Amino acid sequence: MGLDLSAYSVRTDLAVEAREMAAQGGLQSIPGVDMESTEEEGVFITKIDISSEQGAQAIGKRQGHYLTIEVPALRQKDSDLQDRVATLFAKHFETFLQKAGATKESKVLIVGLGNWNVTPDALGPIVVENVMVTRHYFELMPDQVAPGYRQVSAVAPGVLGITGIETSEIVQGIVEKSKPDIVIAVDALASKALERVNTTIQIADTGIHPGSGIGNKRKGITQETLGVPVVAIGVPTVVYASTIVNSTIELLAQNFGKQTDNTNAILGMLPNMTEQDRLGMVREVLDPLGHDLLVTPKEIDQFIEDIANIIASGLNAALHEAVDNDNVSAYTH
Amino acid sequence: MGLDLSAYSVRTDLAVEAREMAAQGGLQSIPGVDMESTEEEGVFITKIDISSEQGAQAIGKRQGHYLTIEVPALRQKDSDLQDRVATLFAKHFETFLQKAGATKESKVLIVGLGNWNVTPDALGPIVVENVMVTRHYFELMPDQVAPGYRQVSAVAPGVLGITGIETSEIVQGIVEKSKPDIVIAVDALASKALERVNTTIQIADTGIHPGSGIGNKRKGITQETLGVPVVAIGVPTVVYASTIVNSTIELLAQNFGKQTDNTNAILGMLPNMTEQDRLGMVREVLDPLGHDLLVTPKEIDQFIEDIANIIASGLNAALHEAVDNDNVSAYTH
Amino acid sequence: MGLDLSAYSVRTDLAVEAREMAAQGGLQSIPGVDMESTEEEGVFITKIDISSEQGAQAIGKRQGHYLTIEVPALRQKDSDLQDRVATLFAKHFETFLQKAGATKESKVLIVGLGNWNVTPDALGPIVVENVMVTRHYFELMPDQVAPGYRQVSAVAPGVLGITGIETSEIVQGIVEKSKPDIVIAVDALASKALERVNTTIQIADTGIHPGSGIGNKRKGITQETLGVPVVAIGVPTVVYASTIVNSTIELLAQNFGKQTDNTNAILGMLPNMTEQDRLGMVREVLDPLGHDLLVTPKEIDQFIEDIANIIASGLNAALHEAVDNDNVSAYTH
Amino acid sequence: MGLDLSAYSVRTDLAVEAREMAAQGGLQSIPGVDMESTEEEGVFITKIDISSEQGAQAIGKRQGHYLTIEVPALRQKDSDLQDRVATLFAKHFETFLQKAGATKESKVLIVGLGNWNVTPDALGPIVVENVMVTRHYFELMPDQVAPGYRQVSAVAPGVLGITGIETSEIVQGIVEKSKPDIVIAVDALASKALERVNTTIQIADTGIHPGSGIGNKRKGITQETLGVPVVAIGVPTVVYASTIVNSTIELLAQNFGKQTDNTNAILGMLPNMTEQDRLGMVREVLDPLGHDLLVTPKEIDQFIEDIANIIASGLNAALHEAVDNDNVSAYTH
Repeated sequence: MGLDLSAYSVRTDLAVEAREMAAQGGLQSIPGVDMESTEEEGVFITKIDISSEQGAQAIGKRQGHYLTIEVPALRQKDSDLQDRVATLFAKHFETFLQKAGATKESKVLIVGLGNWNVTPDALGPIVVENVMVTRHYFELMPDQVAPGYRQVSAVAPGVLGITGIETSEIVQGIVEKSKPDIVIAVDALASKALERVNTTIQIADTGIHPGSGIGNKRKGITQETLGVPVVAIGVPTVVYASTIVNSTIELLAQNFGKQTDNTNAILGMLPNMTEQDRLGMVREVLDPLGHDLLVTPKEIDQFIEDIANIIASGLNAALHEAVDNDNVSAYTH
Repeated sequence: MGLDLSAYSVRTDLAVEAREMAAQGGLQSIPGVDMESTEEEGVFITKIDISSEQGAQAIGKRQGHYLTIEVPALRQKDSDLQDRVATLFAKHFETFLQKAGATKESKVLIVGLGNWNVTPDALGPIVVENVMVTRHYFELMPDQVAPGYRQVSAVAPGVLGITGIETSEIVQGIVEKSKPDIVIAVDALASKALERVNTTIQIADTGIHPGSGIGNKRKGITQETLGVPVVAIGVPTVVYASTIVNSTIELLAQNFGKQTDNTNAILGMLPNMTEQDRLGMVREVLDPLGHDLLVTPKEIDQFIEDIANIIASGLNAALHEAVDNDNVSAYTH
Repeated sequence: MGLDLSAYSVRTDLAVEAREMAAQGGLQSIPGVDMESTEEEGVFITKIDISSEQGAQAIGKRQGHYLTIEVPALRQKDSDLQDRVATLFAKHFETFLQKAGATKESKVLIVGLGNWNVTPDALGPIVVENVMVTRHYFELMPDQVAPGYRQVSAVAPGVLGITGIETSEIVQGIVEKSKPDIVIAVDALASKALERVNTTIQIADTGIHPGSGIGNKRKGITQETLGVPVVAIGVPTVVYASTIVNSTIELLAQNFGKQTDNTNAILGMLPNMTEQDRLGMVREVLDPLGHDLLVTPKEIDQFIEDIANIIASGLNAALHEAVDNDNVSAYTH
Repeated sequence: MGLDLSAYSVRTDLAVEAREMAAQGGLQSIPGVDMESTEEEGVFITKIDISSEQGAQAIGKRQGHYLTIEVPALRQKDSDLQDRVATLFAKHFETFLQKAGATKESKVLIVGLGNWNVTPDALGPIVVENVMVTRHYFELMPDQVAPGYRQVSAVAPGVLGITGIETSEIVQGIVEKSKPDIVIAVDALASKALERVNTTIQIADTGIHPGSGIGNKRKGITQETLGVPVVAIGVPTVVYASTIVNSTIELLAQNFGKQTDNTNAILGMLPNMTEQDRLGMVREVLDPLGHDLLVTPKEIDQFIEDIANIIASGLNAALHEAVDNDNVSAYTH
């Protein structure tokens, strides 16, 4: 075709999607990459562990542990389901906290990344608004803090375009002054699949890396830059127009593959191209026209409220023993 | 293929897109449908007049006059361009007012349709917030109204899911009590092309019809239902995922058509299918999965503010002689 | 003093305050005005019935039934207390519905008066956003509505300055089209006591009258204008600077009255003046300087959310048998 | 009277009010405190220089330079006046910058103090949203920055109750990482006079001190804590109920003083008490009842937008030579 497509890569912040793509590219088994999936009552949990540099390169994600909670029904405003997901999220998040070496007394700083003026990028700031913050009680009246709570602080540092300062620098400054034992970074992500948008929560012990998330991070928010472990929580809220096209072509190919022999006649070479090549081709026509926009479902205002509440509730339950797992949502508004 | 695709139709509220689709389907000339396009400094004006029932059926839009102002650069937050578009919009809108029989004294009711809680559907309510409203001055202190103004009132009636009442019934009730001579209805629309989202303004003298716009209108807001002429202003703010896919395949076909002979080998039958058939096929795979969402660019919060301001400024200039065409934006915030 | 103070009157929309003022003016017993007060766990309920025109004139409120729920602790963000008040409000509101002739099937229109852009005036619109609206289900799919629900619709008609149309005219138009059996009007009120602001709910069967509430109503929303009974719900959210001064002087007088004989030496004639005269004197100095502003507590954003939620929850419980009194808040967000 | 009132002090963050109170207390001339007032077309400028520790103690404000711009007409939504005030503010602010040792190249960090969820406390965050931020351009593409701009960054660090971290610690951390030459701190203030609320801007070279502003600062944001000069910009947006009462009594006394000889008979000892004593007495009755609330005019939403825009426009003009003094408001929205 005369096109060099190798420079293109599918934009996704989810390890589970990166793994899927490798599989579609033929890599059914990758040394140093382990995956385990379970499903219970409409909630899909996938754990991916990347334990070697080779594995990391194969799927384009850093070494570390990733867990994804996918709940396709989450868009349907079912408050019982939301409570169930919050409880489940709390349970898995606690495991990440422990793996990161945190005890019940470890001091936590929650960092809500993103831009509060751009709805699909406002996840982090909305979570920060809704979590229980307790650090000042420990500082100002330590004798009066009930048992079962730990020190939690929370900041929404803004984005480079609003502050003029790298977000990682702001967070570094705050960490040096407030001295948490562990940082939890919450961020909105890009997915390659419209169906995962606002229905999926990813937990990872790898921190936040340059270029990830919706905003344009240029420096990492990681144990290396901050000096304390960083657990990242992300929710895909946007998807590139080009990846919608690409994944639809895949669905078409799967569909025809089942029904007829003449898939090739209908779809030409499209199904036989690698995902990378096909996506490159799609971008080739969309980019020059400025059509490869990041898009979000029209109901984003409601979705982002709902999922931010789930995360805030889950964090409250995971961080404070005194917050009951059974009624986690009562502590947020 | 064994699929009956005839039931599908491309969802667009823009006459210019409906005309394009008919052209792509082979109808280069349609009796009773006249089109005229001009371009000036990056602003594309298209007038479509549908003068026969046959023409209306051919492109699936009601008889009447449609005018589209397309400004691809409108997303770039250029305030000079925004002022230029507001002035141009005011000029063309005045023509529609005159054709609808309005004089300089005609009393106007502006109806901002849509849901203020769903950002891409909030265009109408935001315009209502920003237009100059004068009717109460004429009612309460007629002697003190300066020359050059007319009676303007404005309401945002909400949507069925919030009020429990058909929007058209609410508007009818308000029209009967406040007795305007003409109604201007502002609504957010669906487009079939991501590039038109938030860059295009349509004016039409056909009113608002059931099923149009983002919300689920079930009854019309038209001269028939209200008893006075209705001029509609619409801006596409959303697009179906399926139409993004469809229009990208078209772009691919055009692209390969120019470059090589082997388009068919690469894209199979896709380029040769009608738009209807191809879109039907795409929906066939997306719908059952719930993936054919209405999507909007992630920057929708800013875009909708900008274009609502352009429309409000333009309306102020078109409706009141005393508002200077050269500085229309000064009267809104 | 040479001042004619008779033209001044204490601005209050609460019957309980009007009655208090009459009492302070010496009217301990007023023919045609009955009052009954109870208190339970920090919630004060006062019923005032005005049954004669003479009584109405004596306290400056229309004939009818008024009930006030005062909860001084309501500002403290105690969600248990909020639930208790919502349940209590629901119980008393049901009695008003019944007295107004409503049955379990009566169709209800909730009208949220006020301006959503002015926080202390946004009570009505916020309640409308949060009540359960069901009328469209009855219209569109009557067979599928579960038992225990009635037809409820809800509108926020805006204010004269935004629409250019008298609010009462808009409501009349909507009532004529949607044909409710009864109208519930929710409005923000002015109080004469800062302590009642955001802690008090008044229910009245008298409708909304010109000049009441924060906005500038010029025509009534009453059974006379609408043709169906109107039950009004109001919450004081603002107070005049002058009335703060006046009620503080009263407190001072009470305070010194208990402590010393020389109240007169300290406060001069102030304690002996009628409330009307004293307030007139205060306004005499504040008005010309533009200092007699309507003020609201700085925490108004949170307060108005909380009390709007209580009212919406209470309305849902009072209007639908299927909504359980014990958990009324679950149906609003 | 048996009351010890000495513990009470009038709560004001404005030097001009502190000076007024000292004058009312009889201190017409205070060593080490110089004041100079001018008025031009409805704009009142007052400069107060406190040059000795004795002077500082006499009026209860730190040594330093204070300038107040008072514009009683500012509440009337006059956009010409707003532009004029922005230009005037820019001019005086530049003088403060120069006195603080800043050159045209000095790097500036703007800190918007306060809570964005509490409207009258949201001044700082709103200003931050509206100023031009340029630091990242200098960092990322220094060659492409047009002449006439300097490095400006901006943060809204939140309040203790939301973050759990002292605001001064957050700011220290950010200053250490981003290394500005000077800090501009913007904060909402408390006034003792309702007429100054939302009509007054104070500039001071003293930094922000514990207990000032609406939020509960416990540590300072000053040259001592940050290591760079701090220029503070403040706007009173709230007033205590008690100070409204107190200043009204003063007005009454002034009024009667002019009209009659029998002020004492009417107002008793009130006019003869010191402001401190009188205010103490007022608080004595309001405090136990929880009535001494901080209040704000009901139109606070609009006022705060307007004055934040004036400050953001003025800062843009003062900080960047390339921003024209004549049209400062064009650079904010």
